[in-house]
Amino acid sequence: MPQTLNINQADFEACFLALLTAKREDSPDVDAIVADIIADVRARGDDAVIELTEKFDRLNLTPDTLAFSREEIMAHCATVPTVEREALELAADRIRAYHARQLPQDAQWEDETGAELGWRWTPVSAAGLYVPGGLASYPSSVLMNAIPAKVAGVERLAICVPTPDGVTNPLVLLAAHIAGVDEIYRIGGAQAIAALAYGTETIAPVDKITGPGNAFVAAAKRRVFGKVGIDMIAGPSEILVIADGDNDPAWIATDLLSQAEHDESAQSILITDDAEFGEKVMQAVTRQLETLERRVIAGASWRDFGAVIVVNDMAEAAALSNRLAPEHLELCVADPDGLAAQITHAGAIFLGAWTPEAIGDYIGGPNHVLPTARSARFSSGLSVMDFVKRTTLTKMTPASLAAIGPAAEVLAISEGLEAHGLSVRARLDKLNR
Amino acid sequence: MPQTLNINQADFEACFLALLTAKREDSPDVDAIVADIIADVRARGDDAVIELTEKFDRLNLTPDTLAFSREEIMAHCATVPTVEREALELAADRIRAYHARQLPQDAQWEDETGAELGWRWTPVSAAGLYVPGGLASYPSSVLMNAIPAKVAGVERLAICVPTPDGVTNPLVLLAAHIAGVDEIYRIGGAQAIAALAYGTETIAPVDKITGPGNAFVAAAKRRVFGKVGIDMIAGPSEILVIADGDNDPAWIATDLLSQAEHDESAQSILITDDAEFGEKVMQAVTRQLETLERRVIAGASWRDFGAVIVVNDMAEAAALSNRLAPEHLELCVADPDGLAAQITHAGAIFLGAWTPEAIGDYIGGPNHVLPTARSARFSSGLSVMDFVKRTTLTKMTPASLAAIGPAAEVLAISEGLEAHGLSVRARLDKLNR
Repeated sequence: MPQTLNINQADFEACFLALLTAKREDSPDVDAIVADIIADVRARGDDAVIELTEKFDRLNLTPDTLAFSREEIMAHCATVPTVEREALELAADRIRAYHARQLPQDAQWEDETGAELGWRWTPVSAAGLYVPGGLASYPSSVLMNAIPAKVAGVERLAICVPTPDGVTNPLVLLAAHIAGVDEIYRIGGAQAIAALAYGTETIAPVDKITGPGNAFVAAAKRRVFGKVGIDMIAGPSEILVIADGDNDPAWIATDLLSQAEHDESAQSILITDDAEFGEKVMQAVTRQLETLERRVIAGASWRDFGAVIVVNDMAEAAALSNRLAPEHLELCVADPDGLAAQITHAGAIFLGAWTPEAIGDYIGGPNHVLPTARSARFSSGLSVMDFVKRTTLTKMTPASLAAIGPAAEVLAISEGLEAHGLSVRARLDKLNR
Repeated sequence: MPQTLNINQADFEACFLALLTAKREDSPDVDAIVADIIADVRARGDDAVIELTEKFDRLNLTPDTLAFSREEIMAHCATVPTVEREALELAADRIRAYHARQLPQDAQWEDETGAELGWRWTPVSAAGLYVPGGLASYPSSVLMNAIPAKVAGVERLAICVPTPDGVTNPLVLLAAHIAGVDEIYRIGGAQAIAALAYGTETIAPVDKITGPGNAFVAAAKRRVFGKVGIDMIAGPSEILVIADGDNDPAWIATDLLSQAEHDESAQSILITDDAEFGEKVMQAVTRQLETLERRVIAGASWRDFGAVIVVNDMAEAAALSNRLAPEHLELCVADPDGLAAQITHAGAIFLGAWTPEAIGDYIGGPNHVLPTARSARFSSGLSVMDFVKRTTLTKMTPASLAAIGPAAEVLAISEGLEAHGLSVRARLDKLNR
């Protein structure tokens, strides 16, 4: 059974702190292995990638078969039932429409000295997207990573998806096709990240790598960070539901389990101002767990990391939520907008009982790649902004240099950087001549 | 003497590649030492910070003197000459005005199904800024880090600046005061980063850490990344000047030296379509190096990493520039705006011969914390965006759930996530009843 806490109990602060700092993730130390793999791929390119794929995925590839051919992709896509294809297409359309609004604006203006200032946004030229194989191979994640990149204007988008024993998920290929992915390689693990970052004879290097992965992939992304850009290192998923007593306990229970079923390390928390309602949700979870397909995983997550917290009012709920900084936050209350206004840290908010979190995982439009493990305190979900970068622009006129140049010279000299000062002084002298 | 290359020479591609991949930075492996320091600060808090400060900075502190008092700050600030104070204030005003335009907009709209979608930006609650002590203790960097944070709305901004042997730079304190910094601690190194990330009895933890530092600081920032947000890990500074023959060779030479004087690992490159002009700039650099205060540093940088590249036309210059993805790019050409339009990767562009790069270091308005080592391919300079984060918003109505919910259910089932599907289905069933 999960923890039940009441904000009025004497040891609440200690219990809540324990919940806040609970270590949910095993981080096996694979760094040395990953360093060797990256060095091997840098030194031997395709040969190394092919050998490692044979070793880890029991798959014999050649440079010519590292990538899926267009024919193979089309053949796999053709096996997808129409209802699933249409669902993917609807999801893609909605994700594209949402993210298109994130494209940032260039700016240019003249300041009071006559100088022109501004900035310009440009897309990353080439991006790589890692897609896990096996159990966690989610076509929805392909859409969520690939579409923001394409909306940003990334010209070349490559996917790496391992196919252990040659087993391919046609939905992943279809999602990539719908999203406009340019290249799909059937490789995985640290070797795939190394190939994307450094390139091989067959795989051109990219500038940015995103997407989830296991401990090897995460360690490899950390290692190549700097050589290329990376997205966040995602931890186990989590949901916080804030619900009043006017909800159907069964709905809330299912919402909690929809997070718990991801992973034994996932975390589902309910905060309510109605202790009796909290009890009913606990009972509903227990009941639903009896028949749920993934009851072993969901049950372990709920038992080890689940919690029901009873508060006196919704202001207390908001304050606790801000300390948790949850990845997903459902507000199943009478005035969800009013409560949302009190939330300062959260990856995504789902407003009202008609908005189950699963809508955001698939089809709502916003991204489902979101900050975990309290990192919503300082970071955001994946977006178009992850695939663009800003160049600042400055254009002085002789008059504007005369107006502000002397101050730059003063500061340069105060920092002991003479040539900085001289580069301004030479121009000022010409004006004074 | 630096390298001189002509794009028409037979081995140009090999030489340019060597320039592109030259390792300019020693990265001493201090990771084990840093891990110990962080563990010590986490375990012993103030005591560890105080002991390490005594060891590394030869400074005896107590919990009460870890931070500068308001009186100390004011006393130091009072020693700054008026001309320097006014220059700092002008710089702060201009940086504030530029960055105020970067504040991102919230968004909310209704889609065609009646669902409300959008996002909201909120500031990071607390940020920490590292300021190096000694030679590289730059008040301008305090302004460039602190002002974007304050513009973003960060409530609590703490600075760590080591004061080895008690030596304090009054300009750094004044810059912090002008920028509105809330707390200034006289500690440095990995112990300062650990204190900011994990907190001590005296120093409350922050959510995001920015600012430059030595190898220990950089390693510590990498280690605490995830627990808190960090900015980029900055490498040695660099400038690329693209100049035609209509420039004063002395101006361009000084601009190149203003980057070279930062650091022996800095890099200054000139690309010109006028070989004779390139020669003149080389001669001017040699001449100016005879008297420059920091001639040992600037001379070593120019000798080891400088280059003059002669191209046939400015389109070639732009193409090479995009491969270099320079931190700073000066366009000293007849039509700088036209050339800038061909630039796809650069941290900051300075347009026209009246815009020396040093203006951007101090007073132009844009940030001087910029992506180095070709990372402008995938990242941007520091900005207000580094101190805010986005929460996505989704609010379904019964009708919008009826419209798109079934597709979410299909996708959930295709991914084997039954509870995800059930959380949608339970609501759809209620509608159909």
